[in-house]
Amino acid sequence: MSILSPIQLLQQELAALFADRVSASESIRLHHGHDESCHPDVLPDLVVFPHSTAEVQSVVRLCAKYRIPMIPYGVGSSVEGHTLAIHGGVCIDLSQMNRIVALHEEDLTATVEAGVTRLRLNEELRHSGLFFPIDPGADATLGGMASTRASGTNAVRYGTMRENVLALTAVLPDGEIIHTGTRAKKSSAGYDLTRLLVGAEGTLAIITEVTVRLYGMPEAMSSAMVAFDSVRGAVDSVIQAIQCGIPLARAEMLDALTMAAVNRYSKTDYPECPTLFLEFHGSEASVAEQAQLFADLAEANGGGHFAWSSREEERSRLWQARHNAYFAGLQLKPGCRCIATDVCVPISRLAECIEETYLDLQRDGVEAPLFGHVGDGNFHLMLLANPSDSAEMAKMKAINHRLVQRALAMEGTCSGEHGIGIGKQAYLAQEAGTAALNMMRAIKRSIDPDNLMNPGKIFSL
Amino acid sequence: MSILSPIQLLQQELAALFADRVSASESIRLHHGHDESCHPDVLPDLVVFPHSTAEVQSVVRLCAKYRIPMIPYGVGSSVEGHTLAIHGGVCIDLSQMNRIVALHEEDLTATVEAGVTRLRLNEELRHSGLFFPIDPGADATLGGMASTRASGTNAVRYGTMRENVLALTAVLPDGEIIHTGTRAKKSSAGYDLTRLLVGAEGTLAIITEVTVRLYGMPEAMSSAMVAFDSVRGAVDSVIQAIQCGIPLARAEMLDALTMAAVNRYSKTDYPECPTLFLEFHGSEASVAEQAQLFADLAEANGGGHFAWSSREEERSRLWQARHNAYFAGLQLKPGCRCIATDVCVPISRLAECIEETYLDLQRDGVEAPLFGHVGDGNFHLMLLANPSDSAEMAKMKAINHRLVQRALAMEGTCSGEHGIGIGKQAYLAQEAGTAALNMMRAIKRSIDPDNLMNPGKIFSL
Repeated sequence: MSILSPIQLLQQELAALFADRVSASESIRLHHGHDESCHPDVLPDLVVFPHSTAEVQSVVRLCAKYRIPMIPYGVGSSVEGHTLAIHGGVCIDLSQMNRIVALHEEDLTATVEAGVTRLRLNEELRHSGLFFPIDPGADATLGGMASTRASGTNAVRYGTMRENVLALTAVLPDGEIIHTGTRAKKSSAGYDLTRLLVGAEGTLAIITEVTVRLYGMPEAMSSAMVAFDSVRGAVDSVIQAIQCGIPLARAEMLDALTMAAVNRYSKTDYPECPTLFLEFHGSEASVAEQAQLFADLAEANGGGHFAWSSREEERSRLWQARHNAYFAGLQLKPGCRCIATDVCVPISRLAECIEETYLDLQRDGVEAPLFGHVGDGNFHLMLLANPSDSAEMAKMKAINHRLVQRALAMEGTCSGEHGIGIGKQAYLAQEAGTAALNMMRAIKRSIDPDNLMNPGKIFSL
Repeated sequence: MSILSPIQLLQQELAALFADRVSASESIRLHHGHDESCHPDVLPDLVVFPHSTAEVQSVVRLCAKYRIPMIPYGVGSSVEGHTLAIHGGVCIDLSQMNRIVALHEEDLTATVEAGVTRLRLNEELRHSGLFFPIDPGADATLGGMASTRASGTNAVRYGTMRENVLALTAVLPDGEIIHTGTRAKKSSAGYDLTRLLVGAEGTLAIITEVTVRLYGMPEAMSSAMVAFDSVRGAVDSVIQAIQCGIPLARAEMLDALTMAAVNRYSKTDYPECPTLFLEFHGSEASVAEQAQLFADLAEANGGGHFAWSSREEERSRLWQARHNAYFAGLQLKPGCRCIATDVCVPISRLAECIEETYLDLQRDGVEAPLFGHVGDGNFHLMLLANPSDSAEMAKMKAINHRLVQRALAMEGTCSGEHGIGIGKQAYLAQEAGTAALNMMRAIKRSIDPDNLMNPGKIFSL
C-alpha cells in the first residue's frame, strides 16, 4: 500500500465534495496555468470549480488542512502572472460563481458573485438605464478586477476599482467568511478592509462576492478623435481640460506607431500621428459644450481636425479601434510576446516621461507602440520580443527597467493598473521602500501565517 | 532617592529634546483631554508639540521604549472621543506641523503637514483657481480628517477622505517612517496602505504628511434652497437627481425642527419645514441647466418655491445657516450636550429610515433636530440631554441604539463620517461581524504588538 501525498489526499477529499468539478487533467491545468502575460506557464496541481461562498469555504478549509497553496482564478486575463501556480497547489476557478446576487437600481449598486464579468453585468443592466463603467479592455471578472485594482479607459471620470467597490464577501485563509463594507455610499466604521482586499491579488482572502457602484447612463454620449503633431500637444490638451474642469469620460492617446498598427489591423485610414480618442458624457447641451471647449484647447495645442459624433455606430467603431490597439501592436512583430509596461506618473510629468522614453528607445534602435490613459498619467509601452531570443528579451527588460526608474523619479508608480504579480516585485520594493514593504508583509503574515493564499505574489516572505 | 516612574523618565527624555514644547501642565492637559463629543474628558499625562516627521519619530521611539501610549491630536474637533487619553500617555499635538510641503497645481495635488487645516489649505490655494473640497464643518486638520475618514457636505460630488488622499507619510509604532502611495492619480502597486491608514484613527501609525487631490474651482457655482411638505419629497428629489446624473455638489436636508432652530439662531425667516440646501458646480450654462432640472424634480415631489442664486453673498449666507445648524440645535436645550448619531444607509432606504426614526421619537415624546447629507444617505439626529440627568441620557442612548439597529437592518453603517472612537465600538462589532473584527485586530497586533498607538479606540484587544 502506497502512502498518498498531501495533494493526493486533498484530491480525494475534494472529489468527494465536488465530483467532476475538481480536475487534475492536463488540459484543464494547462488552461489555468497560463495568463495574458509574457511569463512562462506554471500549472496548478488541481483545479476546482466552486458554486458558492460556502463551497469556497470548504476548499479553503481543506487546503489549510493539508497546507496546500490556493490560487483564485477568474478568466485568466491578468498580465503579471497573478494566476500562475508558482508554488503548485489548487486553482480555485470562480467563473461558475456567476450569479447576479442583487441589483439595487435606486441605490445605484449591484452585488454579484466574483465570477460575473463586466460585460455580463452591463448586459444585465441593459434595460435599467444604469451601467458599470470600469473597463480594463478584457472581459474580466469582477472578482479578478477587484483583486488587481483594475481600471482602464473610463477611470479618468469614474475612478478605478478602488473607488467603485463598496463591499465584499471573502473567505479568509482559515476558512472564516467575512463581509466588508456595507451598501451605504460611505462609512468611517473601522479599518477599510474592503480597500485592503482590493488590490491584494488574492494573497489575503478569496473574494467571492463584490458590491459595486453603478452610474446612470448619461443622456448623451459623444466621442471624438483628434490628431496632433506632437505627443506633448495631445497630453497638454488633456491636462488643460482636466484643470479647467471638463469632465472627460475617456481620454486615450495612441502614438503614431500605434495608429499605423491600428490602420493595418483594422483597415482604417486614420492619420498616423499622436491621436486622442475622447468621450464626453452628460446632457445633450453639456456634451456639446464639453466638445466645443475641448476643440478649442486642442486647436491651441496643435491639434488637427476635431471630429466628434454622438452616433452609436461611429462611437463603437472608434472604441473598437482603441480596444484593438494591443492586438494591432502584437501584429507588428508576429510570433513575439509583449512585455507590457504600466507606469503612471503625475500628469504634469507625463509628456516628459513619454518623450524621454522615446529617446531611450531611439538609442537602442527599438520601435514600440505606446498608448494609454492620458487623463490618469498612465501609459503602456508594448515591448515586443521573441521569447526564444534571450538577448532581445534582456534588451526589452532593460528598457522597461529604465522606464520604471524614470516614473519613480517623477513621483509615479511602477504599476497603474496591472498589479505586481510576479513581474514587478523588485519595483514595488523600490517604490514602497523597506518599511512599507515590511508593513505589507506583517499584514500578510497576520492574516495568512502559513502563506497559503496565492503565495509568491506581490512580494516574497 | 526616589525611583522615577516610566512616565517621569519619558518626560525627562522628552524635555531634553523638546524643552518647553513638552508639557505636563494641568491647563494644557485639560485642553487635550477634551473633544467635541459628549464623552467625559480624560487627560493625557504629557503633551508634546513636534515640528517635523523626524521629531514625531523621536517621540514614538521614546514612547515605545517606555511602553507609554501615544495619542495623535489635531484640533480636537472629533466627536467620538478619539483624542481622549483613556489609557493615559502622551498626546502628540501635530498642530505646529503646519507647513505646506508642496503645491503641484498642474497635477491638482497638494502635500501638507498633518497639522494644516482645511481652511488654511484653501487660503493657500486662493489665487490658484483650485480648491480642496472636503468640508466636515469644523476647521479640522488634514491629518485628523484622514485619520477619521472624514467627509461632509461636498462628499456627494467629490467623495470623502477615502477618495481624496493620494499618499501619506506616517510613523509606525516602532519608529519606522513609511511613505504610502505616490502622487500618481492611481496605482495597483501592492496593498493599499494609504486606505488602511485613512480611517485607522491613529491606531496603526501617526500620520505626519498628507497628499490630497485638488479640484479646479468651477467656473460657476450656484446655491438653491427649496422647502418641502414632507421629508420624503425632499429625499426623493435628491435620489432622482442622482439617478438621472445631475452632478449635485451639495445636497443637504434640514428638517422642520432644525429650520426653526436655525431661524431662531440666525434671525432668519425661512419656512419651517423640511428644506433642501443645494449647490451646483460647473460652467454657467451647465449650472443653469442643473438648477432647472432640479427645480422640475422638486416641483414634482411637492417642493415649494425654488430659489437659486449665483451671488457669492447669498451663497455664503445660505451655507453659513447650514453650518450653524449644529449650534442652533444645541440652543434648543441650553446646558445640554448632544449625543450625535451618524448612520448612513443606501439612499433608497433613507426616507424610510428617517420616518421610522420620527415615529420612534414620538413614542418617547422626544424632539430632536435632524439634518444631513441626503445625497450620501447619511444624517445626524441631535439627541440633546442633560449630562447630569442619567435617565435622560439613558433614554437618548436607547434612541441612538434603535437608530443604529434600524440602519444596520437596512444594509447601512453605524458611522458615515464620525468614526468609531470609544463611542461606537459595540456597533462596529455588530456591523462588521466577529470574523472581520478579528481581522482588524490581527492587523492591529501585527503592526502595533504592544498596543501603544491610541489604545482602546475602534475596538478593544
